[in-house]
Amino acid sequence: MESVKKRLTEFSLEAHDLYLNQSVPYLEEPPDPLQFYRDWIGPNKPCIIRNAISHWPALSRWTPEYLREKVGSKVISVAVTPNGYADAVSGDRFVMPEERRMSFSSVLDVIEGKVQVSGVLYVQKQCSNLLDELPELTDDVEPHVSWMSAALGKLPDAVNFWLGEASAVTSMHKDHYENLFCVISGEKNFILLPPTDRPFIPYVTRVTCVCQVSISRPFTANVTTVSLRSSTRVTLRRSRGSLWTLWTLTWTGTRSTRELGHCTVA
Amino acid sequence: MESVKKRLTEFSLEAHDLYLNQSVPYLEEPPDPLQFYRDWIGPNKPCIIRNAISHWPALSRWTPEYLREKVGSKVISVAVTPNGYADAVSGDRFVMPEERRMSFSSVLDVIEGKVQVSGVLYVQKQCSNLLDELPELTDDVEPHVSWMSAALGKLPDAVNFWLGEASAVTSMHKDHYENLFCVISGEKNFILLPPTDRPFIPYVTRVTCVCQVSISRPFTANVTTVSLRSSTRVTLRRSRGSLWTLWTLTWTGTRSTRELGHCTVA
Repeated sequence: MESVKKRLTEFSLEAHDLYLNQSVPYLEEPPDPLQFYRDWIGPNKPCIIRNAISHWPALSRWTPEYLREKVGSKVISVAVTPNGYADAVSGDRFVMPEERRMSFSSVLDVIEGKVQVSGVLYVQKQCSNLLDELPELTDDVEPHVSWMSAALGKLPDAVNFWLGEASAVTSMHKDHYENLFCVISGEKNFILLPPTDRPFIPYVTRVTCVCQVSISRPFTANVTTVSLRSSTRVTLRRSRGSLWTLWTLTWTGTRSTRELGHCTVA
Repeated sequence: MESVKKRLTEFSLEAHDLYLNQSVPYLEEPPDPLQFYRDWIGPNKPCIIRNAISHWPALSRWTPEYLREKVGSKVISVAVTPNGYADAVSGDRFVMPEERRMSFSSVLDVIEGKVQVSGVLYVQKQCSNLLDELPELTDDVEPHVSWMSAALGKLPDAVNFWLGEASAVTSMHKDHYENLFCVISGEKNFILLPPTDRPFIPYVTRVTCVCQVSISRPFTANVTTVSLRSSTRVTLRRSRGSLWTLWTLTWTGTRSTRELGHCTVA
């Protein structure tokens, strides 16, 4: 068994030496779909693409005032957690956030600090909530990224709008999708681990439960800290209309850092 | 260690269930480059493409008479083995074929049965011998397959001409290239094993030597027979101008079956 572990360690190191980059590369403009498939989707490598969404009106329009005017009265689903950790491990449990229905204005009140609530808010749906819950905002972006749709040969399964406080954290997880992540406002920090590091990621099955911040006392989640020598850290800011690609089965954890929080369409 | 072996077996079976096919699929015509990359190169899956080379003059032109007239006097490199097994295991040795320089006409004499020689002949170079040694034949084919070059974003590293007797065998091996295999005459049988079957393929390092059929008595190579439940067998004939794709790190062994042998440009 020791020889297996040794070989898996070598495999991880070789993957970094042979095809993964030590940092996430930047492309200066949106790529040709075939070239993009060949260089990034096929090898399952993340990259940051500058000037990919600089033409989106959202970059200049999406202020709290504008959002209040356009969708302030809309009732949306918000994940509420005691400490910002949604879908996170706490002791022997896997704790899912409370799903609360709130008006968009109420969410902005909290994020802007005008109203204090117990817990941390995070609009983080994955059910195409931009198109389904907030269609009034779609004119400010594009409902799909044309060169990515051409590369994949299909339209996106979901187009999501995310909005969260600085303390909102997405726990380490992996997706079975190709993701594009576009930061419209604020800043998002990613920690990435390639699929070849899978053997070194603690991964156990736990009982799943849902926290109810609104009716119970907040608890403190014991979030497992994963410290791996090969993890890649990257910060995505709204500057220059960058667009972040994040491929299937890459392990990732994220944290927002700006006061206004981040507002993300992916 | 038993649990590792069990998991590797499950992994192999799951690969067949989830993304590999039980038989090699046919496409009815050459694909769009991006679609081809997405559906076949990216997932590393072989396929047979019908009507891909039906416009090549070689399909009707390449008879022994035509080849004698065009390149009969050319001296080419021929692999000679005692039993048809080039680059094969014999006892504790890895035996490479004798490389003999012969005129193309002399090779055809043997393949057509007009002349008897000791050993089995196989023109099987991998150094772009079609373009370098037999440029007179390139007008009968295409120097590259346009949609494949577009998909890979580059021209082929090598364009090879292969010609062999029915008993010529290519031992089980893997390539680090994307391959296109075009049968112009005769028939070629492939045995394929996907990369996920790697743990079950006997693979040891042996001393390499070169056999010299011309000056020593032929020996009998003890060729290891790999019998795996998940191997895929496929026969490629010249009918309908089929073109065979064979991807990186897929394990393959081949055997020709027709009397005239096969004549392959890849």
